[in-house]
Amino acid sequence: MKILVTGGAGFIGSHLCDTLISQGHQVVCVDDLSLGREENIKHNSRTPDFLFIKLDINNAEELEKVFSDNRFDCVFHMAANSDIQMGATYLSVDLEKTFMTTFNVLEKMKVHGVKQLVFASSSAIYGELDTVLSEDVGPLFPISFYGAAKLSAEAYISAACENFGIQAWIMRFPNIVGERSTHGAMFDFINRLTENPAELTILGDGTQIKPYLYVADLVDALIYAWSHATDQLNFFNVGVESATDVTTIAEIIVEEMGLKDVSLKYTGGDRGWVGDVPHFRYDLSKIHKLGWKAKRSSDEAMRLAVCAELAKRSVN
Amino acid sequence: MKILVTGGAGFIGSHLCDTLISQGHQVVCVDDLSLGREENIKHNSRTPDFLFIKLDINNAEELEKVFSDNRFDCVFHMAANSDIQMGATYLSVDLEKTFMTTFNVLEKMKVHGVKQLVFASSSAIYGELDTVLSEDVGPLFPISFYGAAKLSAEAYISAACENFGIQAWIMRFPNIVGERSTHGAMFDFINRLTENPAELTILGDGTQIKPYLYVADLVDALIYAWSHATDQLNFFNVGVESATDVTTIAEIIVEEMGLKDVSLKYTGGDRGWVGDVPHFRYDLSKIHKLGWKAKRSSDEAMRLAVCAELAKRSVN
Repeated sequence: MKILVTGGAGFIGSHLCDTLISQGHQVVCVDDLSLGREENIKHNSRTPDFLFIKLDINNAEELEKVFSDNRFDCVFHMAANSDIQMGATYLSVDLEKTFMTTFNVLEKMKVHGVKQLVFASSSAIYGELDTVLSEDVGPLFPISFYGAAKLSAEAYISAACENFGIQAWIMRFPNIVGERSTHGAMFDFINRLTENPAELTILGDGTQIKPYLYVADLVDALIYAWSHATDQLNFFNVGVESATDVTTIAEIIVEEMGLKDVSLKYTGGDRGWVGDVPHFRYDLSKIHKLGWKAKRSSDEAMRLAVCAELAKRSVN
Repeated sequence: MKILVTGGAGFIGSHLCDTLISQGHQVVCVDDLSLGREENIKHNSRTPDFLFIKLDINNAEELEKVFSDNRFDCVFHMAANSDIQMGATYLSVDLEKTFMTTFNVLEKMKVHGVKQLVFASSSAIYGELDTVLSEDVGPLFPISFYGAAKLSAEAYISAACENFGIQAWIMRFPNIVGERSTHGAMFDFINRLTENPAELTILGDGTQIKPYLYVADLVDALIYAWSHATDQLNFFNVGVESATDVTTIAEIIVEEMGLKDVSLKYTGGDRGWVGDVPHFRYDLSKIHKLGWKAKRSSDEAMRLAVCAELAKRSVN
């Protein structure tokens, strides 16, 4: 198949490109390199089945050219703002990078008759519901603009399925960790422990707990759902049953850095920042029933990510 | 209170302005007059507590001036595309008129510290759920771009409540009928029966059934919820327990037009157009519990609307 991967030079998108190529697909990767990085895809530069185009999806002319030049069977729309906290300060970031990119991709899919879309949604669409988060719960009131933009994109994809006959796979990611990631609590902790190996201050009370999915497991889930779920509008939570709290993240990092006698201090309160969701019960029965399960636990994923980052730093 | 009503020259917005003025509020009405009409508000032109400004909300400079010149206590954001079918053809209509207007209003509310927002949402956010539509159901997959834009706006309002400390009242309207309305099945039927009083062709099988709320009842509900619901994020279905099917609409019109022996023909199928929702069970217990109920039944509302339209035509 000929596949467009938007945000294909990003953390998740670049792993997705690698896997799609390895499975024999032709991949066109577009990325504006605002968050994505050329070093994430440079190993594919001589691969005949891989083409990278630097592109802002919100540039209508440039996007039109990509769709005119290629006859895509499927779009994996991964392009998005990935920094939740930045969206709270700069309102237009999630609007432009997450929502408008989706809108523009849908419009081009309509015009060019592309019929399959796999979308990187997020657990953030659920907001702060005090219930187990199955795919069918409501009401949906996201508390971050990141989540709001993802939910808005889902709503437009849903209408596009009905009106344009598109088949879609909406995949709601939890936090993803692994090689090529660029931000999150882990980086912050490593940076601060590098500066001061004696002490680490943690936002909140350390009990904020989230499932961290390993990036290779996520990519596996995307392709599995795309290959196995056959509704017109498919939607799945993706994740891992276990979860890792902030204190455990700190402890894994301390251990892998080989530090001793680090004093962990806490600012207190049940969340790190406005828009952060302190507790989280993610129902994965739907994707498990489809036949997919994460191979690594949340703690294992975090440890793999920490080791990859430390290895990269020791090389540089 | 000093209140901004966006879309205030439109069908619903103009009735809202009338009621807010009658209750002693100062009203600034903005409208780009793309769907709204000056004749809807001209009776207020000499009212000291009413100011009309012709304005495109998506023009950042013009909107900034309105917020700078006035210190609003509350915004009633009614501006939106109201034509569901148009949105399926022109993708940008709901995006610009419904979603982006909401985004821009929220941004100005943040900058100018305006803390109350009443929002005209829609039952269309629920899509085609095969269940009773209480406010808490999910998943939310709208089937029209109209519904998608309303759900997107809700998502952004929710994030704004959390991030800017705004208090919001999201009111999910069913179909609204009454004086000053400009489109819907009723108009189409009256037009076609005026041309050919012997026959009327109805899209679908005539069983599509919807609750029609009388516009005065809706305005009453908006103000009632705003005055009585005290959560930070309030959200209510608004409506009437009864409903009217398409055949009944035709029969009311035939009767009020004084026609006899009209042959009703049906194109068949369970929906009139792609994006139309054939059946609809709307749970109103939440707003009833708050103490509000519609005064007119759906059939009464439709008959009032038909009589108002026929009276207007006989004058012109």
